Formats: sequence, structure tokens, C-alpha cells
Amino acid sequence: MPYVLHYAPDNASLIVRLALEHRGLPYRAALVDRRVKAQQSVDFRALNPNGLIPVLETPEGALFETGAILLYLADRHGGLGPGQDDPGRGDFLKWLFFLSNTIHPGLRRLFYPQNYIAADHVAALRSGAHADLAQHYATLEAQAARGRGWLLGGPAPSVVDFYAAALLRWPALYPVDQPRDWFDLTAYPALTRLAAAVETLPATVALQSAEGLGDTPFTAPRYPQPPEGSAT
Amino acid sequence: MPYVLHYAPDNASLIVRLALEHRGLPYRAALVDRRVKAQQSVDFRALNPNGLIPVLETPEGALFETGAILLYLADRHGGLGPGQDDPGRGDFLKWLFFLSNTIHPGLRRLFYPQNYIAADHVAALRSGAHADLAQHYATLEAQAARGRGWLLGGPAPSVVDFYAAALLRWPALYPVDQPRDWFDLTAYPALTRLAAAVETLPATVALQSAEGLGDTPFTAPRYPQPPEGSAT
Repeated sequence: MPYVLHYAPDNASLIVRLALEHRGLPYRAALVDRRVKAQQSVDFRALNPNGLIPVLETPEGALFETGAILLYLADRHGGLGPGQDDPGRGDFLKWLFFLSNTIHPGLRRLFYPQNYIAADHVAALRSGAHADLAQHYATLEAQAARGRGWLLGGPAPSVVDFYAAALLRWPALYPVDQPRDWFDLTAYPALTRLAAAVETLPATVALQSAEGLGDTPFTAPRYPQPPEGSAT
Repeated sequence: MPYVLHYAPDNASLIVRLALEHRGLPYRAALVDRRVKAQQSVDFRALNPNGLIPVLETPEGALFETGAILLYLADRHGGLGPGQDDPGRGDFLKWLFFLSNTIHPGLRRLFYPQNYIAADHVAALRSGAHADLAQHYATLEAQAARGRGWLLGGPAPSVVDFYAAALLRWPALYPVDQPRDWFDLTAYPALTRLAAAVETLPATVALQSAEGLGDTPFTAPRYPQPPEGSAT
């Protein structure tokens, strides 16, 4: 049974899809139609009670949490990051969790502030997120600068590179109706190299077509023109 | 070389320490003195650039991120959760990431709001965190109710149970200077059983002594009386 990836264009499912494509794993992409808030439907919540995209259906059931799915795929199939007994496993895990519990939630406060605070205070929450995220992107830059293009410094990309690339793309595009000049990828040269390196992978080319991401989805993102569905 | 756990009493290091004690792994506990903000020192930031507790020094270097350390220990030593090829591995990963990137950061917004928003808006951020966390504890309750005491439903505890127990303890105690009646463990019967089950483990007894956690650290927490250091 191939995997089924429940996705929306340019959502966090993008990161899982890069991993699936990079490793050449068979999967079917099932659109979650955000225009009708399908991610909050009873059917979708049976897969993920949090109502969040992505979900990956696997032989052992529906997985959710981007970081968990990435690690599951990496461990089951290899070729996506240091294995359990490889050197660098600890580094792999610590940066994966850091992206998942620090930078990604920071962007969520920016994109979905109404989930975190009353309407009167949304601007303040966003302003705080800008400051907080700037610090964490700087930490990520320092780590990337230690490596040779990839975040863990090895000769091949891992899922943390795919995750990082998405986290570098989104602040340049979203929220659509807010100023985004707080974020400037060129301020982070090592992360710019990382984004460019991810951009040259065949997996990215596949995504450009599947989700309409354009020619430079990580170094100079444009709004997606997906063949189906909606990013927001 | 035994592990070195950089800890402060009743900090997130508590979760890692439960895992080390439960598995009987040799380690040395090195106090990070929060009273002098040692976690922000140059020396500590060389171990974790984010200036956060815990850090675990391992043969392959300093690990940070609670979830990463837990998973590293579980995979290296066994006996702390489903292994890579065990059934339930996916469930293990998804709940570990959920605790790490949803409930734990929610508590951080409550405990350290000044890291997220300007002072005028702190009360609103806390109020939002209460609502957000209530929803996520309910999700966790539903998962715990499916099992037989432990979060993953198996016959033995895993590191997600230790993590969950700490996330059930802290909202009853912190912030010290704020009302905490938004959280009531008894509203979550399955999580109450989980907290009680973690409380009976020898690992918890060891922690009660090492960090002065008292008799009922998870079901009816009291402020710690640690032999050294400070929780806040």
C-alpha cells in the first residue's frame, strides 16, 4: 500500500512531500480543501484530532506532526538523515525538534494569531513573533554556517534541510495582507546557500509542478499557482 | 563516560532525568544556577545556543531539546518507547512531537510571556494560552483514555508519559504569581491516572529526593524544596 499524503499546496505537507519525492517513495497526494476548511471536518479530525495538515496514512495508521512523519520516513527508508546508529544522530534530532517546536510555532503565531490571542492584541503578537523569530533564524544561520551547505554539515541533504527551506519560504509570502519586510533571507548567507541547494534538487522540481511553486521557491518565493486547492 | 545532565530543579531537565533514572543509565547531574541566570552564560550557550535547560552531554557531543534527548536515549538504550521497527513507532513519534511543539510551547507562553510579546499585552497572551492549552489537554486526555494507563496504550511507560506528567505538573504551580485555576487535573480522568501511574515509578521516587519534588509531584504538586539550585 503506498503512502497517502493529505496535503494542501504550500502547507507543511510540502516538507513531507519533498522527503517522499527525494527518496522516491510511492505515495498518493490527497487534497485537503482549505477553501471549505476541510482540515477541520469530522473525517479529517479522525486522522488528526488537531485538524492540521499534513497527515500521512501509513501501514500502521495515520501519522500527524510534520517532524514525526519526517523522522518516521527517515528511519524506515534511510537516505533522509542519520540513522539510529550513525554519527550525527543527536545533532539530527536536536535540530529537527528545534525547527518543529521553535521556528515553526513562531511562524504559526504570525500566520494564525487568532489561535493565540484576542483580536485587539494580534499586532503585538506579530511584532513579538518577528523579534523572536529573528533570533531563532540567527541561531539556524550559525548552525548552517558550520556546515558545507546542508544544515547537518554532511555531504547529502536530510529532512531538516527540507524543513528549513520551507521555514525560509513562508515568511517571505505570508501573511498575504501584512508587511513582511521583517524577514530578509539575504541577511542569512548560509541559509541562502541552503535554500539554493534545496532548490536544485529533483524533489523540488517535482514540487514546483505538483504545487505550482514557481522557479525559485526557496530563494525568491512567489505565491503558488497550484493545479488544485488553495494554500490558505 | 557517563552522561552529564545540565539541569535545574523542576525544569524540563526533570523529564530527561526521569528517563535516565527509569532506564538506570549512569549520569552526573550538573546544576545550572538559574538564580544567576547561568543558562544564559557564554559557557552554557556553547552547549545550547538557545540558552535553555536541559542539555545532555553525550559521547557524540552536547544534545539539547528535551524531545530530541528523550528520543536519543530511547533509541540508544531501549526500554523507553517503541523502537524503530516496533509497532506503534509512528504513534510514539507523533505524540512526542505534539507534546514538544504544542503543549510545551503553550506553557512557555504562559511562564515566559515577555519572550513573546510586549509587557502591555502579557495578560492577553496568558489568557489566550489558557484557552489554547485547554484544547490541547483535551486532545491528550482523549488519547490517554484510549490506552490502559499509559499514553501509547502499551504495558509499560515510555518517555511520552514522563513528558506528559511534567506538562501536567507545571500548570498547577507556575507562574507562581498568577491565578492557576484555569487548569484542573481532575477534569482529565485518564491523564489523572497517567500522572498517578508515573508517580509510583521508582524513577519518580529518585527525583523526589534529588529535586525535592514532594510526595505527589504529578497528581497534587507542591513547590519543590530542592537540595541545590532554584526552579525559577
